[in-house]
Amino acid sequence: MSSFLSSSHNPHLQQVRALLNQKSARSESGLFVVEGVRLAEETLASQTPVKEAYFAASTSERGHKIIDALTRRGVEIFEVAEPVLESLSATETSQGVLLVLSQQSRLLPSQADFVVILDQLRDPGNMGTILRAAAAAGAQVVLLPPGTTDPFAPKVVRAGMGAHFRLALHNANWAEIREYCHTAAPSGLRLFLAESGGGTSCWQADLREPLALVIGGEADGASPEAREAVDELLHIPMPGQFESLNAAVAAGILLFEIVRQRSQP
Amino acid sequence: MSSFLSSSHNPHLQQVRALLNQKSARSESGLFVVEGVRLAEETLASQTPVKEAYFAASTSERGHKIIDALTRRGVEIFEVAEPVLESLSATETSQGVLLVLSQQSRLLPSQADFVVILDQLRDPGNMGTILRAAAAAGAQVVLLPPGTTDPFAPKVVRAGMGAHFRLALHNANWAEIREYCHTAAPSGLRLFLAESGGGTSCWQADLREPLALVIGGEADGASPEAREAVDELLHIPMPGQFESLNAAVAAGILLFEIVRQRSQP
Repeated sequence: MSSFLSSSHNPHLQQVRALLNQKSARSESGLFVVEGVRLAEETLASQTPVKEAYFAASTSERGHKIIDALTRRGVEIFEVAEPVLESLSATETSQGVLLVLSQQSRLLPSQADFVVILDQLRDPGNMGTILRAAAAAGAQVVLLPPGTTDPFAPKVVRAGMGAHFRLALHNANWAEIREYCHTAAPSGLRLFLAESGGGTSCWQADLREPLALVIGGEADGASPEAREAVDELLHIPMPGQFESLNAAVAAGILLFEIVRQRSQP
Repeated sequence: MSSFLSSSHNPHLQQVRALLNQKSARSESGLFVVEGVRLAEETLASQTPVKEAYFAASTSERGHKIIDALTRRGVEIFEVAEPVLESLSATETSQGVLLVLSQQSRLLPSQADFVVILDQLRDPGNMGTILRAAAAAGAQVVLLPPGTTDPFAPKVVRAGMGAHFRLALHNANWAEIREYCHTAAPSGLRLFLAESGGGTSCWQADLREPLALVIGGEADGASPEAREAVDELLHIPMPGQFESLNAAVAAGILLFEIVRQRSQP
């Protein structure tokens, strides 16, 4: 059974709008929003608990299947007039399906050998794309130091394509990060910082040992705390005399260089 | 000496607006627009001829230096009231500098060993990011079959960060592409198509020989013509049980795997 909401002044919809548009609303409630059929399917497949679901009667057959499955799971469902649902989201269409989820991520594993640290990253699209690549590369943990953009903002969630459900994704300060990297493997994790033109070539560095890869911000790179914590700088050699890669592309190249080295006999 | 334009109805500014917003205006005139200080500096550094330059008096010192340099080169300069200049571009700020350039790219070299073909790519941001990575990887040529988004759209130019000036960038149909790949190297170029989960692992394939790498579209992959033309499929192994990479990230990984293999002794 679902309630029907026809007015955007409804308090439930006001909360959804706040979760979509305000970081403070997300961090105070510990909730975030997933929009669209594909991401909702990823949510279901990953068994992530759903707090509330909103749908428009005009959603596709796939959309209705999602709502049916959530109804069977006992999730609170709201039917919303389509124009009202579409008006909640500033940039994208919800395809008639919108879920409210807890930000609670997978638990931080006590042992890990492939950790990613996103430090001072500002662009939500870049962050989502890197989370997606980190999940595809098999990274277990992503840590977010202070100063990094909110991973539960709608643009990050959209670009992540479901990576949020595959990773242990946690905010942490540098003292906590150092402690974790010290204990997550028998000899600790080696901290590498990706830096254009600095340190070792990623093809020469030994990336088979347990490690944490720090990706710095697009504009000003990593923070001083990150620089102090890292063991080694890592760069991607660029023969094109045009030393410029998008942050997400650079991260993807390094993440899959780790995968490549570890897959070698 | 520059003319001062205060009205957006001025025919010069109408043309700039059309070049920013309409593909037909770009292809009919063979012109495109570069916005912002950094891209304008890239334009100058690459010695690309500038047809017209527009600036606002409020631009930064770097912006004024660009205009001074173009004035010395004899380029036609227009000073524009700042709000009028800002109103031309729908999405971004011009930082008070805007150049009109010819689409004429570097000539197609008769010999090449590193060619990229972007087939059915639709997202301008992805295309620009891939052009940037291709230039950084040292690719010589980028070919664009029918059905691929316009490389001179403002979003592509912005994301390309100057790659447009470093590459031989050409539209071509598949008959022309086949012909070029046949003759660009003594034994021809081997055509590889990036395909999620298909064919050879990019780490097993031999990417040292002269080659052309085909990147298909985000939604539906490459065209049937591309599939018929290629010699070998190439995939990126993904251990994360989450087979999903952004098209630009996947392209970046493959482009720099080519660089890696060729840099090995």
